[in-house]
Amino acid sequence: MQLAPRIAHIAGTDGDGWGIYYRTREMIRAGERVLNLTIGEHDVKTDAAILGAMHGAAMAGHTGYTFGAGLPELRAAIAARVQARSGVPTRAENIVVTPGGQSALFSAHMALLDRGDTGLYCAPFYPTYSGTIRATGAEAVAVATRSSRAFQPEAAAIMEAATRPTARTLLINSPNNPTGVIYSRETLEGIAEAVRAADLWLISDEVYDTQVWEGQHLSPRALPGMAERTVVVGSMSKSHAMTGSRLGWVVAPEPVVEAITLLATVTTYGVPAFIQHAALHALAQGEGFEAGIAEPFRRRREIATRALAGSQAIRAIPSAGAMYVMLDIRATGLSGNAFAERLLEEERIAVMPGESFGAPAAGHLRVAMTIPDADFAEAMARLAGFADRLLP
Amino acid sequence: MQLAPRIAHIAGTDGDGWGIYYRTREMIRAGERVLNLTIGEHDVKTDAAILGAMHGAAMAGHTGYTFGAGLPELRAAIAARVQARSGVPTRAENIVVTPGGQSALFSAHMALLDRGDTGLYCAPFYPTYSGTIRATGAEAVAVATRSSRAFQPEAAAIMEAATRPTARTLLINSPNNPTGVIYSRETLEGIAEAVRAADLWLISDEVYDTQVWEGQHLSPRALPGMAERTVVVGSMSKSHAMTGSRLGWVVAPEPVVEAITLLATVTTYGVPAFIQHAALHALAQGEGFEAGIAEPFRRRREIATRALAGSQAIRAIPSAGAMYVMLDIRATGLSGNAFAERLLEEERIAVMPGESFGAPAAGHLRVAMTIPDADFAEAMARLAGFADRLLP
Repeated sequence: MQLAPRIAHIAGTDGDGWGIYYRTREMIRAGERVLNLTIGEHDVKTDAAILGAMHGAAMAGHTGYTFGAGLPELRAAIAARVQARSGVPTRAENIVVTPGGQSALFSAHMALLDRGDTGLYCAPFYPTYSGTIRATGAEAVAVATRSSRAFQPEAAAIMEAATRPTARTLLINSPNNPTGVIYSRETLEGIAEAVRAADLWLISDEVYDTQVWEGQHLSPRALPGMAERTVVVGSMSKSHAMTGSRLGWVVAPEPVVEAITLLATVTTYGVPAFIQHAALHALAQGEGFEAGIAEPFRRRREIATRALAGSQAIRAIPSAGAMYVMLDIRATGLSGNAFAERLLEEERIAVMPGESFGAPAAGHLRVAMTIPDADFAEAMARLAGFADRLLP
Repeated sequence: MQLAPRIAHIAGTDGDGWGIYYRTREMIRAGERVLNLTIGEHDVKTDAAILGAMHGAAMAGHTGYTFGAGLPELRAAIAARVQARSGVPTRAENIVVTPGGQSALFSAHMALLDRGDTGLYCAPFYPTYSGTIRATGAEAVAVATRSSRAFQPEAAAIMEAATRPTARTLLINSPNNPTGVIYSRETLEGIAEAVRAADLWLISDEVYDTQVWEGQHLSPRALPGMAERTVVVGSMSKSHAMTGSRLGWVVAPEPVVEAITLLATVTTYGVPAFIQHAALHALAQGEGFEAGIAEPFRRRREIATRALAGSQAIRAIPSAGAMYVMLDIRATGLSGNAFAERLLEEERIAVMPGESFGAPAAGHLRVAMTIPDADFAEAMARLAGFADRLLP
């Protein structure tokens, strides 16, 4: 009468530094003013018109079971959007709607990985990645990227990991959480080559694809020979400020869609129809709406760049997308954990230690640009001053 | 570059007869009048006041991430309800909120079963059970019950299955889908004894616990020594006509709750807060509201009983709860599949063949009492006439 061994396996040993996150929440609950830069979530709520569409659908009677891969009209709308943005022919049959991007990530790995397999992922990484892979029973193996290379995955490291005999999948994320980096075409071509050579599935988490500040987002599904082996994870959370609605999707070859649909019958039994209707309404608002949702982060990235430009202690990783900037604070001689602890204690500014996202981000901080501009500017200025005072 | 072996394992080989269900949907879509008794879902929509509470919560800003085991106030409300109904001391810490009862079932099995283990379940069974168990990598083994014993699990059969060395869990469901049977105290005591003797976890699916027409629903968690090894699955779907809202829960000892909460971080990442607020509102309506939701099925069970009383061809399994009646049609010499096929073709009445729910229900039909009373009475009268005309 014990728990399944899987549970201890999921918990694993990585992911240090979440103490900061929980302490910050407690301090805020206790009424303290903390400039909280730990959370990857918009400081705006879901748009009232989207919520109105949701309520309208519910009142119109869309309150029963949905089953299957999602409402046909939503699958078609997502397919059209994916095709328009990536240039890759995409049909409704390539789409399965899931209750959130995390469910899409989990379902994709459950469909493709089993006990005895290895799932690869790039570090630094979004903290659920390793546990998601391990939840399937597989081993999770990180491919390190380097701060000195702006955390772009390097072809040689990918190729070496991909040729492990047990490797079946590689999970990548661009625009990247936590680094804000967008993978270059060269990076993605190197990844594609390794994945093809080793006959892996590529799982591409593109939930930040509307948050692009410099250059372009390229979906690896658009590279030659990759549509048939790429599984894209998408979501309404970041593009439409709908984190709490839990609406995501997988774009994949049909056999994978069918496998994930089968999984849905035994794991979630579908996504509320009224939420699917809300997503349909939101997607119909078009690119202007999405640009508006992304705009605050674009502004704040400029604020951060200006505030940190003169710092001797901080080197900002050149970020091109997503709602984060990653700061290299190794010049201060402190670990990310120690820096973040002191910053919270002494300045009441909360940031995530890089260590929370894997060893390659040790000595770094992840700053979520998710508070109003004036507060964010104050936080960046005080953070820079604090760091510079730590220099010998 | 193949699918995980898990996918073929989930699909398994059981579950025959779903052709009827899909054909019925197509006929209805094509505009035909079919009296559709296949679907376990209310013929009423979710109450407008509940949907209003959902919209109110969304507009009040509950549109962000929730994380964790559920809103503290909802966990507390569910715990209070479980304690009031079962008499078992239950705290918020014993509750984890999930996106639907199926997610609760899956999470419970994922927390307790692993590759190499066996998960037991009683047949006839709700069709996702075997696939849910197999999705964990475990083997799913049915414990047969007998029509002649009104499908009450028998102590000897349970004990024999429970003593398999690989058995870790036993899944039961009372009030039962598909049979409408409520397990007696004697049945549950036999199950509890076997589970304790073999040191298993008992997973008790009680989603129909407000649909009780005769006798009482007894949660096995209330039996001596069982609270520490029983995991109860609950849901708003049947009790509050909220199938499409996907709001369920697990009641369990704290280590299991913690394991399922960890699983949630890598599988679903929480349940929409506005749906949790809707559930809070719905639970606050009290037992009168729930009785009102159940009332149509109570009436229709009476209708079915009267309509079938004079039939020579049909023996109704004495149903005491849930929204189903199960009919033994073996006297006609037809299988459940053949009977259901002909009933659909010749009478435009759709029922589920017993074979869809496992071998012990072969030669039976499941009738879902989920259409308006007049239509239901017509369907039952015509079904009885059709069956009697089949007699030699």
